[in-house]
Amino acid sequence: MHITILNGPNLNLLGTRQPEVYGATTLADIEHMCQRKAQALGLEIEFNQTNHEGVLIDQIHAARSESDGLIINAGAYTHTSVALMDAVASVSLPTVEVHLSNIHARESFRHTSFLSPVALGLICGFGATGYVMALDGIWAHLTAADSARP
Amino acid sequence: MHITILNGPNLNLLGTRQPEVYGATTLADIEHMCQRKAQALGLEIEFNQTNHEGVLIDQIHAARSESDGLIINAGAYTHTSVALMDAVASVSLPTVEVHLSNIHARESFRHTSFLSPVALGLICGFGATGYVMALDGIWAHLTAADSARP
Amino acid sequence: MHITILNGPNLNLLGTRQPEVYGATTLADIEHMCQRKAQALGLEIEFNQTNHEGVLIDQIHAARSESDGLIINAGAYTHTSVALMDAVASVSLPTVEVHLSNIHARESFRHTSFLSPVALGLICGFGATGYVMALDGIWAHLTAADSARP
Amino acid sequence: MHITILNGPNLNLLGTRQPEVYGATTLADIEHMCQRKAQALGLEIEFNQTNHEGVLIDQIHAARSESDGLIINAGAYTHTSVALMDAVASVSLPTVEVHLSNIHARESFRHTSFLSPVALGLICGFGATGYVMALDGIWAHLTAADSARP
Amino acid sequence: MHITILNGPNLNLLGTRQPEVYGATTLADIEHMCQRKAQALGLEIEFNQTNHEGVLIDQIHAARSESDGLIINAGAYTHTSVALMDAVASVSLPTVEVHLSNIHARESFRHTSFLSPVALGLICGFGATGYVMALDGIWAHLTAADSARP
Amino acid sequence: MHITILNGPNLNLLGTRQPEVYGATTLADIEHMCQRKAQALGLEIEFNQTNHEGVLIDQIHAARSESDGLIINAGAYTHTSVALMDAVASVSLPTVEVHLSNIHARESFRHTSFLSPVALGLICGFGATGYVMALDGIWAHLTAADSARP
Amino acid sequence: MHITILNGPNLNLLGTRQPEVYGATTLADIEHMCQRKAQALGLEIEFNQTNHEGVLIDQIHAARSESDGLIINAGAYTHTSVALMDAVASVSLPTVEVHLSNIHARESFRHTSFLSPVALGLICGFGATGYVMALDGIWAHLTAADSARP
Amino acid sequence: MHITILNGPNLNLLGTRQPEVYGATTLADIEHMCQRKAQALGLEIEFNQTNHEGVLIDQIHAARSESDGLIINAGAYTHTSVALMDAVASVSLPTVEVHLSNIHARESFRHTSFLSPVALGLICGFGATGYVMALDGIWAHLTAADSARP
Amino acid sequence: MHITILNGPNLNLLGTRQPEVYGATTLADIEHMCQRKAQALGLEIEFNQTNHEGVLIDQIHAARSESDGLIINAGAYTHTSVALMDAVASVSLPTVEVHLSNIHARESFRHTSFLSPVALGLICGFGATGYVMALDGIWAHLTAADSARP
Amino acid sequence: MHITILNGPNLNLLGTRQPEVYGATTLADIEHMCQRKAQALGLEIEFNQTNHEGVLIDQIHAARSESDGLIINAGAYTHTSVALMDAVASVSLPTVEVHLSNIHARESFRHTSFLSPVALGLICGFGATGYVMALDGIWAHLTAADSARP
Amino acid sequence: MHITILNGPNLNLLGTRQPEVYGATTLADIEHMCQRKAQALGLEIEFNQTNHEGVLIDQIHAARSESDGLIINAGAYTHTSVALMDAVASVSLPTVEVHLSNIHARESFRHTSFLSPVALGLICGFGATGYVMALDGIWAHLTAADSARP
Amino acid sequence: MHITILNGPNLNLLGTRQPEVYGATTLADIEHMCQRKAQALGLEIEFNQTNHEGVLIDQIHAARSESDGLIINAGAYTHTSVALMDAVASVSLPTVEVHLSNIHARESFRHTSFLSPVALGLICGFGATGYVMALDGIWAHLTAADSARP
Repeated sequence: MHITILNGPNLNLLGTRQPEVYGATTLADIEHMCQRKAQALGLEIEFNQTNHEGVLIDQIHAARSESDGLIINAGAYTHTSVALMDAVASVSLPTVEVHLSNIHARESFRHTSFLSPVALGLICGFGATGYVMALDGIWAHLTAADSARP
Repeated sequence: MHITILNGPNLNLLGTRQPEVYGATTLADIEHMCQRKAQALGLEIEFNQTNHEGVLIDQIHAARSESDGLIINAGAYTHTSVALMDAVASVSLPTVEVHLSNIHARESFRHTSFLSPVALGLICGFGATGYVMALDGIWAHLTAADSARP
Repeated sequence: MHITILNGPNLNLLGTRQPEVYGATTLADIEHMCQRKAQALGLEIEFNQTNHEGVLIDQIHAARSESDGLIINAGAYTHTSVALMDAVASVSLPTVEVHLSNIHARESFRHTSFLSPVALGLICGFGATGYVMALDGIWAHLTAADSARP
Repeated sequence: MHITILNGPNLNLLGTRQPEVYGATTLADIEHMCQRKAQALGLEIEFNQTNHEGVLIDQIHAARSESDGLIINAGAYTHTSVALMDAVASVSLPTVEVHLSNIHARESFRHTSFLSPVALGLICGFGATGYVMALDGIWAHLTAADSARP
Repeated sequence: MHITILNGPNLNLLGTRQPEVYGATTLADIEHMCQRKAQALGLEIEFNQTNHEGVLIDQIHAARSESDGLIINAGAYTHTSVALMDAVASVSLPTVEVHLSNIHARESFRHTSFLSPVALGLICGFGATGYVMALDGIWAHLTAADSARP
Repeated sequence: MHITILNGPNLNLLGTRQPEVYGATTLADIEHMCQRKAQALGLEIEFNQTNHEGVLIDQIHAARSESDGLIINAGAYTHTSVALMDAVASVSLPTVEVHLSNIHARESFRHTSFLSPVALGLICGFGATGYVMALDGIWAHLTAADSARP
Repeated sequence: MHITILNGPNLNLLGTRQPEVYGATTLADIEHMCQRKAQALGLEIEFNQTNHEGVLIDQIHAARSESDGLIINAGAYTHTSVALMDAVASVSLPTVEVHLSNIHARESFRHTSFLSPVALGLICGFGATGYVMALDGIWAHLTAADSARP
Repeated sequence: MHITILNGPNLNLLGTRQPEVYGATTLADIEHMCQRKAQALGLEIEFNQTNHEGVLIDQIHAARSESDGLIINAGAYTHTSVALMDAVASVSLPTVEVHLSNIHARESFRHTSFLSPVALGLICGFGATGYVMALDGIWAHLTAADSARP
Repeated sequence: MHITILNGPNLNLLGTRQPEVYGATTLADIEHMCQRKAQALGLEIEFNQTNHEGVLIDQIHAARSESDGLIINAGAYTHTSVALMDAVASVSLPTVEVHLSNIHARESFRHTSFLSPVALGLICGFGATGYVMALDGIWAHLTAADSARP
Repeated sequence: MHITILNGPNLNLLGTRQPEVYGATTLADIEHMCQRKAQALGLEIEFNQTNHEGVLIDQIHAARSESDGLIINAGAYTHTSVALMDAVASVSLPTVEVHLSNIHARESFRHTSFLSPVALGLICGFGATGYVMALDGIWAHLTAADSARP
Repeated sequence: MHITILNGPNLNLLGTRQPEVYGATTLADIEHMCQRKAQALGLEIEFNQTNHEGVLIDQIHAARSESDGLIINAGAYTHTSVALMDAVASVSLPTVEVHLSNIHARESFRHTSFLSPVALGLICGFGATGYVMALDGIWAHLTAADSARP
Repeated sequence: MHITILNGPNLNLLGTRQPEVYGATTLADIEHMCQRKAQALGLEIEFNQTNHEGVLIDQIHAARSESDGLIINAGAYTHTSVALMDAVASVSLPTVEVHLSNIHARESFRHTSFLSPVALGLICGFGATGYVMALDGIWAHLTAADSARP
């Protein structure tokens, strides 16, 4: 099984600035954690970052023929992009929405996500660990038939 | 380490009704999955369900002296109970909010959670698997010093 | 056929206070009127009152195995309780929402009912008579196959 | 005693179209059911339908000198017509608002009724049976002195 | 095939007043343009105007047995009439909503249309030409099986 | 006369996925239909698609010196992009907004269009046929002096 | 000079019901007061009442060729009818909006008037006297060139 | 009888600036027109202007012992001052609200008046003539017992 | 005279946790302060705390036959419980609403109180002292006839 | 210790008008009650009233160098004046907001207070007694170190 | 050229209180900076401060005959005063709105300015420097003919 | 010191189209004015324009290591881009928001800026001069320690 992990705007700066405040974990570190977990679960992963909304849409389209699932941290585009929502909906892959911080504990304009209504599930607030949990969640979904979801 | 897992209204009915629609996973099955995961992580857990808001508050208060963390699926009280929010805030334990379904893909009155602003993180949409992921997440939080959360 | 009739907060005070203002009809009188009507229709009824939201949920759950229909006057919980809505939805019994007064002619926060979207029908404004009408309505529903509902 | 029953826009189509979906009950059938119930209660009734808001107002005015009560299913005008509300208020007859479907379980613009604040009571969701229940309700109101309505 | 074209309030004044401002095209001219196009497409048309909401509803009902499609310029009733919406929905004919002006470039209360949710499609801003385009659009719909509508 | 036709995000996927659901019409087919119609009307057309908002803006700017009119299906950017609105306004070309589906019959966030206030007219709900109708509409506008638009 | 005075729904009941509450002034009395004032000012008047929105529109259209000004008490249609607003706007006659009661001191849905934006002026709260004041106001407008209106 | 006429902020500039745009009528001219009308009706008047909200309140208080009625053009304070509303309510004098322009045809923040709910009536849109009409209206109110105000 | 003092959810934790932050005053200390004040005023008091909404309602009902007044700090239920509001309204005792913190200086969902409209008065922001002030206030109310409350 | 007590618009009329309705307590009586209480507590007080917002701001500024605390009944300016809020915030004195009536039980525009977020506490609904309670509250605050305010 | 600089409520306290927090710059210092800049640009300036809204209006009116431009820091009146907006609009002088802090980064009620729609431009967030920049901006406006303002 | 000046969508068209309407100032002219001012202040500047949101983000990131401050005219992205806001916040450079026109005097959707909360200050309405003022403002900020910003 192959999973595409997409990262949106400003996530390239992660961990390279003010490590005493935001921690020293970089996006490369997160990719590493994901690779280790993927290996343990027998998954292949692809890991990308871009600041361009259009590129994110192109990458989601590309995943359609290459991947079995998507993990997306769309950053600020989460809250404003109907186009990303449509892209996810149109490729019909199980998609996990991830955010490093707890977006529901921040400014109110971050409480709305256009991705959530078309996502399988949402994980937020666990920092880098959230990506690893997302791999567990999508693996459980792809390998299991029966999940209680009342 | 000891984790208290609390379940709110109507979750007692899980899996015992219309299994062809909602799946056959019962709350007892979920408790079982949590026990297995807890053992693997070296955690002790306590697992409760109640339909009473006041009892949930009493249980959160009790966790204060007994537990190192909370996992709460407060069901419908999530969206209406400021009292639960205050209870979680007042015990100062790391708290993970779990929902079986993706609440952000449902009716708009389920998009608001009074628990999110006082929770460490949120997991929703993964069915029973979400509880197991929550244990992973809270364990990572309790055992790690540095998590990137921009 | 067996019908469960549930009454919510403050309805225990009915008729016992200021009879010159609110009339002398007590909740016991209403139960009596319901018993007489039930007998005429060949129905068994159970009639309860509680001020506790959690107890109402427990009673709705209990009705699942014992009753063929619910009549609920949830009082003020009507306007605030998503948990009651979920309880009614989860037991899949035909449910009639009753209010003594015309809630749509009162304060605007009483115009919203979380029960209405999951109820078969709504009767309000007819005082104690509304309970008797509800028995007629639920009996017609349970015994008839074809009702025009455009 | 004489009761005027008024039906608003599109109700003339009832039961004559797609009977496999909406049922075969026509407005004529409902009039018949009302006649039978009226006879049982010793009431005279008049039963009208129109698609014209102005005609409904004229009919409400006419009821003023001829009737002891009104039963109105104003269809879609319920949600938009302040003029109907004023007409009902100005004739000071006890008025029961009836809807075949449960309007509170439909689109949000159907949750607002300009008639409710000036009506005695509201019955919805019981299909054709709702008209019969309305006759019972208005009869109880006209013949009784004391109804508990807290 | 037979198409009914309905025009609502104030459209009778079209072109007969201040031709230097609004142009000289009258409703009769538009009917003429529609007749020419209908002939070219092999359609029969009927073309009406009324200032009365109730008459519009009666005409929509009448179209049910006589026509294969509706073209409606409901004028100001577009924005206020739930009854018209219900009438269109109840006759189940493919319906094209037409407006001479671009209603979305005018006052905000003209941005809401109760007809749009039950219409096949919407054409606005093309003046009299919009009616002719509507005939093309409804003809394409009635004669074609496959139209991409993602 | 030369017309530029621009297509926004996700429209590249049209017809190539699940043809049994969405129909087999591809964007290439739509381009073909437009070419045929353009030939009939004596128009030259240019037909583009991009998932990038910035590229759409560049293309609108380019049209300024090359084209006599614009037809835009901006997809999801319709509902979120003030920048596209400003681009259309700044080139002062007659612009027709096209949508394959009836956007006013979908989710409420698709009811708002930033393009409508600066467009000549709007066509939606006619699938691929809508593009052909747009060519007719813009041709009528460019070749006619007098269109009634009250 | 000729002035058309139009009265909308429910105003026919004025003064004929519960005179001890609403006063004994009937619509005929108001017409009489208007005739006396008109004579004093050298005006001809026409005075109508209807409960039908469509008839009001027809009467406004008719005034276009017969009158120099309009005085309208549109009753409840004031608050809901965009069609009346368009009718007034389309005949371009100076129009005075009159209400017997102070609509801004009543329910909030009576604070919005679709007529006000297209009216010359508004008079409310003066009872029958308001019509006489309206004649004074429209006469002053028609006979004067300079009115300060900052 | 004695009437106090109060004018609020910026009305002192009336007619003295850009007479070709706003007309040449000054506040002194309006006072003159009021004096003439008052003489005809046998009224004494006092006529004041101030830009200070506090001074307006002091003047309303003073009117309590000196006047039989108030005419107020509170200018922009109309839309923002609860204190003025309380002042008018506390002196219990019949009060007419006057505006030179039709405030309901201007920006939406001018559609709200804190004075209207405590005023006898409202006159707007008639320019200087509105003050004269206000004197007529208040005189009719003070000298008459029966005014129809449904 | 007898006063019932009721405390709602989470108030049991007061002062027992992080005294360096929240102060060392416990609910028992507050009860003590109230007892001392009550003695000084010649009042008997009863002092309760519960986390259960239903128990609060039961206690309010009980106060009806035992007490002359209520002092309620309903904690978070203040902002969400219509049932508590109804309970207070139904017992018709003078009721003082108390909050330790200034709820109007906190999150906006704490600015709404369902108790305020049925309370005699409100005291907030004075910490434990607020209870003592409430006793003074209710004593003044019960012993005095004339309080200025414009 | 010195406390400044400020009273805003319309409070000068207190008790001098319709004593049978509003009571006979005048603002002078309230000042008297405050003087007696101040003496008992060993406080000096200054007691002012003005209808002018600007004067209130000047008095708050003046209190900065003369007083240890403020008690303000800002009347209607409470709900509209950001300038008063800034004045209180800028002088950094403990400030008690007082209202004679329970503002939260009145019109909704009186539920918002710009003073509350910058005040120590709020007392309303106790009539003249509220001022005396405010003196107790501010004295307790100034003389105590530890007040529980969760 | 002559420029009037007006300062509103609470700005008199600037720099004289808690200099370690807010800086030591006083309003007198700002006047000094403005005088120096004015001299450099060859402008005369007048510099005022008041806490009274009415005085600000009087000063704006006075500027009409004395000045070529206005610079206004209206403090908190910016967000609440329609009267100031009307005053600025009525004197037709180029007006620059200045705020020391970035009002759009503060509480939401400070994001609305009644002055902005009638101002030439806005400068905020630059502290005392903003006044000097405003002089530059108004000078550029008064001396230049062509400024690009798309 | 080095300042990066970024320009967003559609600003490339400035001055090259309809110079008789928008003036002849091009973006190149503005760059020139900035260069001259920069030279006078001893600053180096970089001046860019792009229609792509993603490119703007990349440029802001690049400024992090190269510049001491940012001046951004983000055009229409100002009102819709949370991603730009996050980019500015993440590079922690003093940032001045500039707009050629007064955005607060235009359509309401231009009154909201996602940049303002993270900007040092805002300048709008001064056309090309605004950029020069921004250089003055950022220079004053970077070279001064003490600016009064209450």
